[in-house]
Amino acid sequence: MSRTLVLLRHGESEWNAKNLFTGWVDVALTEKGRAEAVRGGELLREAGLLPDVVHTSLQRRAINTACLALDAADRHWIPVKRSWRLNERHYGALQGKDKAQVRDEYGEEQFMLWRRSFDTPPPPLADDSEWSQTEDPRYADLGDDLPRTECLKDVIARFLPYWDSEIVPDLEAGHTVLVAAHGNSLRALVKHLDQISDDDIAGLNIPTGMPLLYELDESMRPTVKGGRYLDPEAAAAAAAAVANQGR
Amino acid sequence: MSRTLVLLRHGESEWNAKNLFTGWVDVALTEKGRAEAVRGGELLREAGLLPDVVHTSLQRRAINTACLALDAADRHWIPVKRSWRLNERHYGALQGKDKAQVRDEYGEEQFMLWRRSFDTPPPPLADDSEWSQTEDPRYADLGDDLPRTECLKDVIARFLPYWDSEIVPDLEAGHTVLVAAHGNSLRALVKHLDQISDDDIAGLNIPTGMPLLYELDESMRPTVKGGRYLDPEAAAAAAAAVANQGR
Repeated sequence: MSRTLVLLRHGESEWNAKNLFTGWVDVALTEKGRAEAVRGGELLREAGLLPDVVHTSLQRRAINTACLALDAADRHWIPVKRSWRLNERHYGALQGKDKAQVRDEYGEEQFMLWRRSFDTPPPPLADDSEWSQTEDPRYADLGDDLPRTECLKDVIARFLPYWDSEIVPDLEAGHTVLVAAHGNSLRALVKHLDQISDDDIAGLNIPTGMPLLYELDESMRPTVKGGRYLDPEAAAAAAAAVANQGR
Repeated sequence: MSRTLVLLRHGESEWNAKNLFTGWVDVALTEKGRAEAVRGGELLREAGLLPDVVHTSLQRRAINTACLALDAADRHWIPVKRSWRLNERHYGALQGKDKAQVRDEYGEEQFMLWRRSFDTPPPPLADDSEWSQTEDPRYADLGDDLPRTECLKDVIARFLPYWDSEIVPDLEAGHTVLVAAHGNSLRALVKHLDQISDDDIAGLNIPTGMPLLYELDESMRPTVKGGRYLDPEAAAAAAAAVANQGR
C-alpha cells in the first residue's frame, strides 16, 4: 500500500517580502505568494498527485495556500483538518522585527543561533506586545501550551503528537495527505522523517510553494531519504534564497 | 443559549454571469463574485457575527466563497465540514444551457415550472454528457444517490438528513454556524426553517454574497420568520435581480 505525503510550505507572505520575523503573526500572502500556491497546485495535478485530505496550521498564509493550491489541482472539495500544532515556529520577541536589523544589532553569530540553532529560543514575546497571541480567540483553549517563544526543538515537541494522532492515521488509511504549513513546522517534520541530527538540521531550508513528495514505508520512514521535489531545479534555487535571508 | 445560523449564497459564478443553468457543474467565481464573498465576510465582521464552524457544499463556488468571506472576517481558521448534500440543485439536462434560450425554446410556463415548481424536475442529464458527474471522484461513494436531475423537493430530501445529523448538533453545542452554499440548497433550508408552503417557496429568491442571519429557538425554529439580512437594502435589490433571470 502506498503512503503518500506531500509537504507544501506557504507561498511568499507580506512579511517574507518585507524581510520581517513573522512566527505566529497572522500575515497574508503577497500576490507572488498566491501565484506560488496556484503553481504548487498545478504541479500536483500535473504529477497526478491528488490529495485525499489536507492538514493546515491555523494561520492564513498556510490556509490560503491550501485553498489556492487545491483549487488549482481540482481537489478543493477534500476534507480539511487544522491545528495550531502545524503553526510556524513562534519567534518570541523577534516577531515584527526586521531580519537585517536584528543581524546588524546582535551580530551574525547570535542571529544564526536564533534562526537555526536547534535548542536556543529567542527571548519571549511580552503578553502586551502588539504581536502577542494571548487575546487571539483561535488559541483561547491552549492555556499553558500557548508559546511565547520557541526553538525548533519546541516545535518538534508540539508537532509530533499531531503527526502521530492525526496525520499517520490518514496515511495508514491509504490517503494521499497534503500538509500545508510553514518553514519551521515542515523542517520539524522532515527532521523526524529523515532522522536528521540536531546539528545537520541547521543546513536544511524548505522553499515556499514547492510540493515536496515523500513515499513512506510501513514504519512511516521515507523510501527515499529527503523526499523529492516535484520541480527540483526551482526548489534548489529557492532553498538557496531562503538560506541567504537577512544578508 | 443563542443558536445562531448564518446562510451565505456563493458570489456570482462564471455561469451566473453567462446566464447558463449550472447545477452540479463546478464553475468558478467571477471577479465580481470574489468581491461579493469578501464583502459578505466584512459584513459578518462588522456585525460581530463570528462563525465557529463552516459547512460547505463540494462545489468550488461555495468553497471559495467560504474561504474568502472567512478570511475577510478573520475566521479563516475555524473547522470546515463539507457535504454533497449542500450542493446546488442538479439541473438535469438543462445544465450548460442558456436560460434565455431555454425560455424561448420551451416557453415561459415550462421555463418557470423547471426553475421554480416544487416537484417537477427537468429531464435527466445523460451519463455521457460533458456536464455529467458520473466520473467525478468527489461523488464516487454516492452510488445510487448520485442525482441526474432534481426538483426542489429532491433537494430538501437529501439536504435535511445533513441538517439534522451535522448542522443541528453544532447549533445545539452553542456554535455560531455558517452555511456557505447555493441558491436552491439554501431555499430548501429556508423552506424548512420558515415552514413555507410548497406553493409559496416559488416566490423566494436568495441573493448572492449577502449573509442571512437566523436566530433559532430550542426547537430550531426562527425567532424571526425569514431571518434578517445583514444588509437588507442590498439584499432586496439583489433578490429582485435573481427573480428576473432569463428575461
